[in-house]
Amino acid sequence: MAGTKYAYVKSFELPDTLLPGTFIVARVDGHSFHRFTEVHNFAKPNDERGLRLMDHAARDVMDEWKDIVLCFGESDEYSFLFRRKTELYNRRQAKILTSLVSKFTASYIFHWSEYFPETPLNYPPTFDARLILYPSVQEVRDYFSWRQADTHINNLYNTAFWALVEQGGQTTKKAHESLRGTNSSQKNETLFSRFGINYSKLSERFRKGSILVRAISSEKDASNSATIVPALESEGNSETSPQRKMDKLAALKSAIETLHVDIIRDEFWTDRPTLLVD
Amino acid sequence: MAGTKYAYVKSFELPDTLLPGTFIVARVDGHSFHRFTEVHNFAKPNDERGLRLMDHAARDVMDEWKDIVLCFGESDEYSFLFRRKTELYNRRQAKILTSLVSKFTASYIFHWSEYFPETPLNYPPTFDARLILYPSVQEVRDYFSWRQADTHINNLYNTAFWALVEQGGQTTKKAHESLRGTNSSQKNETLFSRFGINYSKLSERFRKGSILVRAISSEKDASNSATIVPALESEGNSETSPQRKMDKLAALKSAIETLHVDIIRDEFWTDRPTLLVD
Amino acid sequence: MAGTKYAYVKSFELPDTLLPGTFIVARVDGHSFHRFTEVHNFAKPNDERGLRLMDHAARDVMDEWKDIVLCFGESDEYSFLFRRKTELYNRRQAKILTSLVSKFTASYIFHWSEYFPETPLNYPPTFDARLILYPSVQEVRDYFSWRQADTHINNLYNTAFWALVEQGGQTTKKAHESLRGTNSSQKNETLFSRFGINYSKLSERFRKGSILVRAISSEKDASNSATIVPALESEGNSETSPQRKMDKLAALKSAIETLHVDIIRDEFWTDRPTLLVD
Amino acid sequence: MAGTKYAYVKSFELPDTLLPGTFIVARVDGHSFHRFTEVHNFAKPNDERGLRLMDHAARDVMDEWKDIVLCFGESDEYSFLFRRKTELYNRRQAKILTSLVSKFTASYIFHWSEYFPETPLNYPPTFDARLILYPSVQEVRDYFSWRQADTHINNLYNTAFWALVEQGGQTTKKAHESLRGTNSSQKNETLFSRFGINYSKLSERFRKGSILVRAISSEKDASNSATIVPALESEGNSETSPQRKMDKLAALKSAIETLHVDIIRDEFWTDRPTLLVD
Repeated sequence: MAGTKYAYVKSFELPDTLLPGTFIVARVDGHSFHRFTEVHNFAKPNDERGLRLMDHAARDVMDEWKDIVLCFGESDEYSFLFRRKTELYNRRQAKILTSLVSKFTASYIFHWSEYFPETPLNYPPTFDARLILYPSVQEVRDYFSWRQADTHINNLYNTAFWALVEQGGQTTKKAHESLRGTNSSQKNETLFSRFGINYSKLSERFRKGSILVRAISSEKDASNSATIVPALESEGNSETSPQRKMDKLAALKSAIETLHVDIIRDEFWTDRPTLLVD
Repeated sequence: MAGTKYAYVKSFELPDTLLPGTFIVARVDGHSFHRFTEVHNFAKPNDERGLRLMDHAARDVMDEWKDIVLCFGESDEYSFLFRRKTELYNRRQAKILTSLVSKFTASYIFHWSEYFPETPLNYPPTFDARLILYPSVQEVRDYFSWRQADTHINNLYNTAFWALVEQGGQTTKKAHESLRGTNSSQKNETLFSRFGINYSKLSERFRKGSILVRAISSEKDASNSATIVPALESEGNSETSPQRKMDKLAALKSAIETLHVDIIRDEFWTDRPTLLVD
Repeated sequence: MAGTKYAYVKSFELPDTLLPGTFIVARVDGHSFHRFTEVHNFAKPNDERGLRLMDHAARDVMDEWKDIVLCFGESDEYSFLFRRKTELYNRRQAKILTSLVSKFTASYIFHWSEYFPETPLNYPPTFDARLILYPSVQEVRDYFSWRQADTHINNLYNTAFWALVEQGGQTTKKAHESLRGTNSSQKNETLFSRFGINYSKLSERFRKGSILVRAISSEKDASNSATIVPALESEGNSETSPQRKMDKLAALKSAIETLHVDIIRDEFWTDRPTLLVD
Repeated sequence: MAGTKYAYVKSFELPDTLLPGTFIVARVDGHSFHRFTEVHNFAKPNDERGLRLMDHAARDVMDEWKDIVLCFGESDEYSFLFRRKTELYNRRQAKILTSLVSKFTASYIFHWSEYFPETPLNYPPTFDARLILYPSVQEVRDYFSWRQADTHINNLYNTAFWALVEQGGQTTKKAHESLRGTNSSQKNETLFSRFGINYSKLSERFRKGSILVRAISSEKDASNSATIVPALESEGNSETSPQRKMDKLAALKSAIETLHVDIIRDEFWTDRPTLLVD
């Protein structure tokens, strides 16, 4: 058969199975988003439309793979947590990671105009991704605490920075200098006394990032989603009306909640006792 | 500093450096393209618009990373060859692979309407990708031979199959049965005697796939492209007219040739003696 | 400097760091021990001298690296468990695994004549080793249960097999046939009724394998062993009498207990609550 | 079957296949040999007995695996080169590396008394090992050049150092100071003018290290060694006289040459055109 003599090259594809029994975290990051947000006139320090579009893309990813149990997003990054015992794609690293980043990219671009109806895409944004394994629940919690602490630090800095620039008339260089070495309370104080901004009153989306979880109330239903999704797929050629399919799909998607709450303290986790259970 | 106590989780990000001195091949594959092409009414067995869009996305990838020296595409897959000594992203596997698949996905969706002006995207397609290392020039050549032999085998089969179905009125089941166990010349004979199709006269794009290389004539210029690209980027704030920039960009892109020729025989390679040189 | 132009080859040594936060298990296996035990006239089905020598080698390994908290041996294999948070050799896989298998090999050969005073080594035995990561305590327990269940299965089989051969006068071929398809109680019955062997009265060493743990009573002292060992090493040039050093070393080694007990049931583990704690 | 419920732990053993088509180099290093050579009164700066024992151990390794085509040793380290297309142990990394380091360790200890008849082993030495892949012939040559350049640098330094200490009466501290910043010709000059040592007249073993290759004259026979070795093994139960077996084995071993020549210049390689051929 033609091609047989070349098929040996396939043996160079080595297995990249991920260690079983570990939590998989995939983190997607925007590529050159500094330039992308400039070109597309994103509001500073936060553009709500942009953040909502990130949430939308993440939700589409979470809809696609039911073994994703939790997502956390801030700025131009989003983290995805798979349940410990997932057997998705036989835990093949490249397959999982590339499928996920492609889906995220695709959704972001596809839904762009819904969030930026007045701003045509000048060029399409891209993302990279990395994958990290965590052996225990504690490390998973600390990972998400790490990201949310980062959200807080960055957002407080950026809020103060852009207040100095846009309201205070400083150059960006001067603004960086003004903030060098300041701690959190000094930044809070600057915001309040000079610009009348009460940081703690800003949108929780900006201060805490976005958390996606499958709705608690429908945890029982969620276990059915495995049934629903293939059902939807297999209905491709059936007589189910498009409307009925869209209804079902919407119901399924609505099972994902978008929250902007504290993920560092115990409460978030104790309220969801089954979240990290295998 | 807030977050410091959680930063230890970063130590779980292990290095994934690729072996130096090896050729990196990344292959992008369409995810569930059977369904995607159905939903979007692709012509059978080949949809020229779809293939041209794949070529466009691949060209955008090749434009982005000058260390890609050769690409080969067929159907819903595309392979990218990096030069042996590339230090792109310090040869970090996940970074290279996810950036590439994201760029490919982004470009495919962004340029969809140029190739399918009458067919709105029903939903965005996604791709996965894998990465393979080849130590020697021979294995690299055999890899591309393997893919092009595959193109031939699949395309001949599909051409015969759809002739039996669309012109011969067979069911798809019956058509598969008709072709079971036939060799190439029997398929050629079937096409010619029953449907008047001279397989060797079909588009070379269908029979040989698409090859992207940087144009030979401009190999000297190509070495300048490293200079041109950053120049273009840095002109973001300069006074260069958009038109002039587009001209330059077009010139650069035109340096990439799209070919549909035999990549198995020596000629392709002997004509390009510098292609696989480090 | 001479050699500098070649130093780039060092960059091909890629990192092989093991995932933090996981239990490392290294399992050493005898290479061609069937032949080795034949040539050196080991008793069948178990040679107590050989097993005691395996235990000795394992104890020397455990003495060398205090982060090894548990060992289990049977036949010609030995497993070593490192505590979850060990930073030995910065968790470099090859360094850990090769050092361990070399130490085991060295000790086995060095102490051979103490256990086989009448049997000179005809040629030196060798071992290979593999390394496995377990994320959780449950998997670690199940790993050791797996090995001890294996000990039981193999030993019952071998005991029955050699009774049929050596006492029953069967050929080895016939003995395998006699045992094919029999379950545990049938093997027990055969041993008892035909050869008067009460399997449950055989040495626990044979039936349960060997377990090495650091003695509970000296858990506090054990934490001092880190101090003792370097102290011993650094005494190389001091005036401490060799006898005093040997005494100290013996005290340290005696802190390791060799047990032949059930490791599958909870009791072993609940009796040692700190065994798997980081 | 007992044990079945635990067998899942085996799935945590992940594949560690080495990239096909690459040269495998394994380098064995003595563990704490500074102390080991002190305790066993090795001559300074080189102990010929010790180096010959290293060569012996390396030769035993090379005898065991016919896919090893070249070895290079100096001081307490030895490098082993496998032919590019070896399929030894299906190219499993841990299996290859641990078997090799165990064999080396075993042989070193087993043959100790032949080289150090007056010096009983105080304790057994151990070795660690690492594995490196090289894609091309050039890198393989540069690897061995790197090691031999290192031999030269270290040996010249050590020769001058011990001359200053043992003949010049300097403390080791003073001797290090004397040599700091000196280049090769200055060290040569010191050796010659102060101690009458003509460095270039010293043993080539010390200055160039040891190279093991299969003898050229018997390259045809070497291809038979694959036949000879299993033959020897399978003769275990046959009537071949031990003497005849030893003769054959000696013949086979004698097929390995021990050289102390320049491995950096082309000559060594051009004289052995088949050495790096797959």
